[in-house]
Amino acid sequence: MAPGKKGIIERLNAGEVVIGDGGFVFALEKRGYVKAGPWTPEATVTHPEAVRQLHREFLRAGSNVMQTFTFYASDDKLENRGQSLKISGAQINEAACDLAREVASEGDAMVAGGVCQTPSYLSCKSEIEVKAIFKKQLEVFLKKNVDFLIAEYFEHVEEAEWAVQVLKASGKPVAACMCIGPDGDMHGVSPGECAVRLVKAGAQIVGINCHFDPETCVKTVKLMKEGVEKARLKAHYMVQPLAFHTPDCSCQGFIDLPEFPFALEPRILTRWDMHAYAREAYKAGIRFIGGCCGFEPYHIRAIAEELATERGILPPASEKHGMWGAGLEMHTKPWVRARARRDYWEHIAPASGRPKCPSLSTPEGWGVTKGHAELMQQKEATSSQEIKHLMEMQKKAKSSA
Amino acid sequence: MAPGKKGIIERLNAGEVVIGDGGFVFALEKRGYVKAGPWTPEATVTHPEAVRQLHREFLRAGSNVMQTFTFYASDDKLENRGQSLKISGAQINEAACDLAREVASEGDAMVAGGVCQTPSYLSCKSEIEVKAIFKKQLEVFLKKNVDFLIAEYFEHVEEAEWAVQVLKASGKPVAACMCIGPDGDMHGVSPGECAVRLVKAGAQIVGINCHFDPETCVKTVKLMKEGVEKARLKAHYMVQPLAFHTPDCSCQGFIDLPEFPFALEPRILTRWDMHAYAREAYKAGIRFIGGCCGFEPYHIRAIAEELATERGILPPASEKHGMWGAGLEMHTKPWVRARARRDYWEHIAPASGRPKCPSLSTPEGWGVTKGHAELMQQKEATSSQEIKHLMEMQKKAKSSA
Amino acid sequence: MAPGKKGIIERLNAGEVVIGDGGFVFALEKRGYVKAGPWTPEATVTHPEAVRQLHREFLRAGSNVMQTFTFYASDDKLENRGQSLKISGAQINEAACDLAREVASEGDAMVAGGVCQTPSYLSCKSEIEVKAIFKKQLEVFLKKNVDFLIAEYFEHVEEAEWAVQVLKASGKPVAACMCIGPDGDMHGVSPGECAVRLVKAGAQIVGINCHFDPETCVKTVKLMKEGVEKARLKAHYMVQPLAFHTPDCSCQGFIDLPEFPFALEPRILTRWDMHAYAREAYKAGIRFIGGCCGFEPYHIRAIAEELATERGILPPASEKHGMWGAGLEMHTKPWVRARARRDYWEHIAPASGRPKCPSLSTPEGWGVTKGHAELMQQKEATSSQEIKHLMEMQKKAKSSA
Amino acid sequence: MAPGKKGIIERLNAGEVVIGDGGFVFALEKRGYVKAGPWTPEATVTHPEAVRQLHREFLRAGSNVMQTFTFYASDDKLENRGQSLKISGAQINEAACDLAREVASEGDAMVAGGVCQTPSYLSCKSEIEVKAIFKKQLEVFLKKNVDFLIAEYFEHVEEAEWAVQVLKASGKPVAACMCIGPDGDMHGVSPGECAVRLVKAGAQIVGINCHFDPETCVKTVKLMKEGVEKARLKAHYMVQPLAFHTPDCSCQGFIDLPEFPFALEPRILTRWDMHAYAREAYKAGIRFIGGCCGFEPYHIRAIAEELATERGILPPASEKHGMWGAGLEMHTKPWVRARARRDYWEHIAPASGRPKCPSLSTPEGWGVTKGHAELMQQKEATSSQEIKHLMEMQKKAKSSA
Repeated sequence: MAPGKKGIIERLNAGEVVIGDGGFVFALEKRGYVKAGPWTPEATVTHPEAVRQLHREFLRAGSNVMQTFTFYASDDKLENRGQSLKISGAQINEAACDLAREVASEGDAMVAGGVCQTPSYLSCKSEIEVKAIFKKQLEVFLKKNVDFLIAEYFEHVEEAEWAVQVLKASGKPVAACMCIGPDGDMHGVSPGECAVRLVKAGAQIVGINCHFDPETCVKTVKLMKEGVEKARLKAHYMVQPLAFHTPDCSCQGFIDLPEFPFALEPRILTRWDMHAYAREAYKAGIRFIGGCCGFEPYHIRAIAEELATERGILPPASEKHGMWGAGLEMHTKPWVRARARRDYWEHIAPASGRPKCPSLSTPEGWGVTKGHAELMQQKEATSSQEIKHLMEMQKKAKSSA
Repeated sequence: MAPGKKGIIERLNAGEVVIGDGGFVFALEKRGYVKAGPWTPEATVTHPEAVRQLHREFLRAGSNVMQTFTFYASDDKLENRGQSLKISGAQINEAACDLAREVASEGDAMVAGGVCQTPSYLSCKSEIEVKAIFKKQLEVFLKKNVDFLIAEYFEHVEEAEWAVQVLKASGKPVAACMCIGPDGDMHGVSPGECAVRLVKAGAQIVGINCHFDPETCVKTVKLMKEGVEKARLKAHYMVQPLAFHTPDCSCQGFIDLPEFPFALEPRILTRWDMHAYAREAYKAGIRFIGGCCGFEPYHIRAIAEELATERGILPPASEKHGMWGAGLEMHTKPWVRARARRDYWEHIAPASGRPKCPSLSTPEGWGVTKGHAELMQQKEATSSQEIKHLMEMQKKAKSSA
Repeated sequence: MAPGKKGIIERLNAGEVVIGDGGFVFALEKRGYVKAGPWTPEATVTHPEAVRQLHREFLRAGSNVMQTFTFYASDDKLENRGQSLKISGAQINEAACDLAREVASEGDAMVAGGVCQTPSYLSCKSEIEVKAIFKKQLEVFLKKNVDFLIAEYFEHVEEAEWAVQVLKASGKPVAACMCIGPDGDMHGVSPGECAVRLVKAGAQIVGINCHFDPETCVKTVKLMKEGVEKARLKAHYMVQPLAFHTPDCSCQGFIDLPEFPFALEPRILTRWDMHAYAREAYKAGIRFIGGCCGFEPYHIRAIAEELATERGILPPASEKHGMWGAGLEMHTKPWVRARARRDYWEHIAPASGRPKCPSLSTPEGWGVTKGHAELMQQKEATSSQEIKHLMEMQKKAKSSA
Repeated sequence: MAPGKKGIIERLNAGEVVIGDGGFVFALEKRGYVKAGPWTPEATVTHPEAVRQLHREFLRAGSNVMQTFTFYASDDKLENRGQSLKISGAQINEAACDLAREVASEGDAMVAGGVCQTPSYLSCKSEIEVKAIFKKQLEVFLKKNVDFLIAEYFEHVEEAEWAVQVLKASGKPVAACMCIGPDGDMHGVSPGECAVRLVKAGAQIVGINCHFDPETCVKTVKLMKEGVEKARLKAHYMVQPLAFHTPDCSCQGFIDLPEFPFALEPRILTRWDMHAYAREAYKAGIRFIGGCCGFEPYHIRAIAEELATERGILPPASEKHGMWGAGLEMHTKPWVRARARRDYWEHIAPASGRPKCPSLSTPEGWGVTKGHAELMQQKEATSSQEIKHLMEMQKKAKSSA
């Protein structure tokens, strides 16, 4: 970290609000640099200008954390997802660190190296094998000297613990996020219990990212906090939810919604929804507040604007944004000028323009939470053989439902 | 134009499909570089990297036209919208040309210099004064040697004619777009009549941009085409609609929707909606097909993918996109894999995730089309005095309604 | 008519508002006495107490017209719809007249004998044959001395003219209603032209019933009125719309909605919607205001309450209804008491409680209005042979669309 | 009971499905005989023909239980609700019994005398005083020799227990229904505990009526059943839910929805929703299946048709109803004929025709369940003084929320 900059734990201990960034895979998919399905980050090598620009936009919007664009960049995942380019995992991870550092140094931001769930775990590889995967990414993060580490997007607390244990050994601060809802992880471990186990494994910050909307994620972090406090442990809390409304999700989140991932547009949160989210997260005692899939820079700016008083600062991008619609004050039409006020936007119930569509969907999948969790104990399939096996189980589950 | 590249008219005469780009003001507002309200493009000078990156993304998505980011960059507008930076209009326009040319030269794209409606016209300035405004922008376009010119976003056909007449004098090909719906311009001139007048004024391409959704815009261009053909004139046709569903608009389009401009998210078109749009536009005989506010690069890519057979080419960004969801073919969950097919996405009716919101809104404004058009003859207000006057008229209109 | 009672024309000439009743087939289908599909009124003979009770409820709600329950009671229809009971058409029609007269005599109401479209016309029978059908029903109405006659539910103005000519010969006042929307009858004859032809055929009252919601029906009657006035003719106007919201209908109305007839519940109008309807109809100069399918007694009461000042009277059933929710004034919960006011109910946007359902449907049928009208010239099929023929035409129409 | 007729317990013990009737106050409000607000049943005296006709329609639809129309017919309620007619409570209750018996004797139905919650309990009267109220109604039921007794529509289990104790003393079979959801009664007593207490008080049948939709009510009865079985007690189960979809209700049910009681139309269940309800109730082991507010005769018929195989009988009203839309088989339009099948209606997602309305509402009230329950311990206000007091408490609750 640049001399004079405060570290993540220093900031959180001081009671500061740390603002995260948004999800890179969804944003760059829309810009043409990430393929939906594999979701891998080879763009750090092939199109660094696009990745750099997105980092800059989040920095400008107020982010204090430049998360390395290393999602699904473990060697097993890159291979599994058909990454046939002649680019090694190390190259992708290194380029990601360089881009994050370059932009972080342009403002008040830290670099966080990130690891996430692996196909190795899902295909029942051993603890040693899975940890080896994390270690390989960690080596790059240490070589590039990131400021702290985030283990995120875990559906199984056991795998998350393994990741935290690996990362913790580095001596860097470690944050850990599950991608679960209030019902807990895929084996039914409650959010509170997950949090306790992650703290015990060495995480100083625990929370939730992805899979659910802000309301659900904040609610789940609250359950984590209750668990940690009940166990008389200490932790900081973070949340990086979707920017999609998902009140109709079941236990595996937005993946199971019929709209995932190519028809989620009607669910995108407005900037005003983000104000409400930031306030709720803050009231819940969460101090590392960011975003995941669906977040665009203006969503992060909205968080920064909502918490401007608490943080004592507005982000650079606010030079291009009137608070609560103030930019409309000079509009020539009186009824548009009338929208230049907080009360208007705070209470708007925006129409979808789609009268032939429903408001809520029915999640797909193995349906009943319980049956689902049981099937999950078999782990997800990563080979065609396993897929066949799972489909048969699914049939049975349905016929016995 | 680079030697060997074909010009816009040459392409259209040859029956080629020319793909436009998306709207810069909305995309850059979300990225933090344009202020909603003024909507002016000073970012070409202050943040060229952001403008360049967006051009690149559209090029990569398949755009053949790099439109200079000169929307609302006439001197009167920049002044009127409180552009107090020490950057001249000429600087903004020149930088816009340079950025467009730089990226166009990286692929198969032309540079189009763009002008649009002026506050001078709305405040009843003379034909000479208004034309002087256009001439000033044109000088830059000629100095920078753009490939062709677009006069767009006009609500009054008279002003559009003036613009076309000015641009036409340059000898460059001229395209002209109104931002009107099937009901015609603000004085009630029908789309067919508008088109005829624009062709007579010298436009070789006529069409519609902004203010309405693709369905409405294509329908309006059809009316223009009928008018031109009935008058035994010849023209090419273009369309650059919103990427928002607006079935509930009244005559002035999405400006009057209560959600404009900060709560339009639920209305954003999916990529599959774009496939339908591209097909409809093509079937209507429109060959210059692009986008305006709300379009992101993936929306343009969807147009290019829908018309890949007709054009004999896929855009570079399709390397990161499986056609019709093919990227999901390897997903571990069978029900997500089942989404990897055209039939699925073509018929999806995506939920909003917002059960407490309506499907359609009631447009605001002076209400009755007729009363509105009459008031519009008074022109929109550009000074606080005029605003007061208009508000009084509005009151009277309401009380007599 | 009872001595001292005023006739329909007398009332309308005096500027009085005459309130009609609601649709018997839908109301009695829900009560268990009419079969959806055939929709025939044999209940007048088999369950007179149910028909009598419904008449009484409408009378109590304010109806001035007891329409004989003779819908689809022509001999050809009864036979065609599989009416195999040993009850003759004459018996059904006579019983209907007796029931209407019995209840009318209990209050301020007239008896109107009603005829409607016939299968004979649809299967291309001659004018003489079709008129013979109407004459047979008319004989009963004259024997039972009804107060006036209504020819209603016609999709083809030619058949309506024939009906009016037959009824007119009786010397009784004749009202005539088409079941069309603003696009006109099934041959494309405009509402204005339909109205002119009906007046020329002898109708003193013209209007619209069934097939569309109040908004659409009032709009269509306005077009009729404009046509009549333009032709310098004179007429009174009536409207008896559906009690279902049908903004998504195409030219043949609610029959083509996917919800017809067994899932229309979410579309049912509230009593407050009825207030708005009554006011609009009144403002349009319509003075015979009633209802058709979907109307329950409380809907008619709402019309009577909205026009209480103009009529100088409240209906008997208002003893059991506080105006604008006044009955809630004594509720124990303050927030329920707060609903006891006009402003609350006038602006409520009631939720459907069905988040997985859309707001609008896509009408089924031959689609394009024009193709549809052409097909309609072939008349609807009434035999399996004709049905086959039509289905082939439909296929061709679709494939050439 | 007529000789040869089986009693309620006899039937349930034999495993028969007993079908209840629908809610009289809502049905008769729409017909003009009950006033919303007071909801009292003086129509049994003033308009017996209307009450008799509704009984007949339910009988014809398949109901085996003619519930006396004695809702809110306790002396304290009649007085409290401004019942100023010169009709005594005894007269109303006696007339109700006579009407129910008259119609029951026309078919296979029993007469059930019904009591419900009293204002005396809400205003903190003593057990003795409250029981005296119930006793007075019971005297009439015994004089008129009803077949069994139902204590229903209780929000507080304590009051329900008192009612059951009074009724039980008569020796007649007693059924008891709470109007609560899964969260339990207004003091937070769980459904399972409520059921146990009612069984211990003497009820042989326990269940839920009113306040929530079928899905919620069946779910709540399941919880009651679990409670009873866990306590190793025995009971039969009944359910009589609303005919309105209420997924958005909070603990006090549809009363707190903004649409109550005059804009619930979009929520009305279709007959196909009733099929699903009947099946779910049956699968849950509930054998006394009926309806409450919103139920019309055709809703009850749908229950009888869904369970026709299990019961071995179709109701009389099915002579006027083709199963699963079969009545449409002869329609002249092929696309309407295509609706004559189970698969079509079973899966229809009916549109509301109201694109400017939301799908779900926000319940009104004291909001948080907990705060609410606490306030409820103060009992609801029945005097203006108490109302003032409650409103102050509400203010405080809100300001501290």
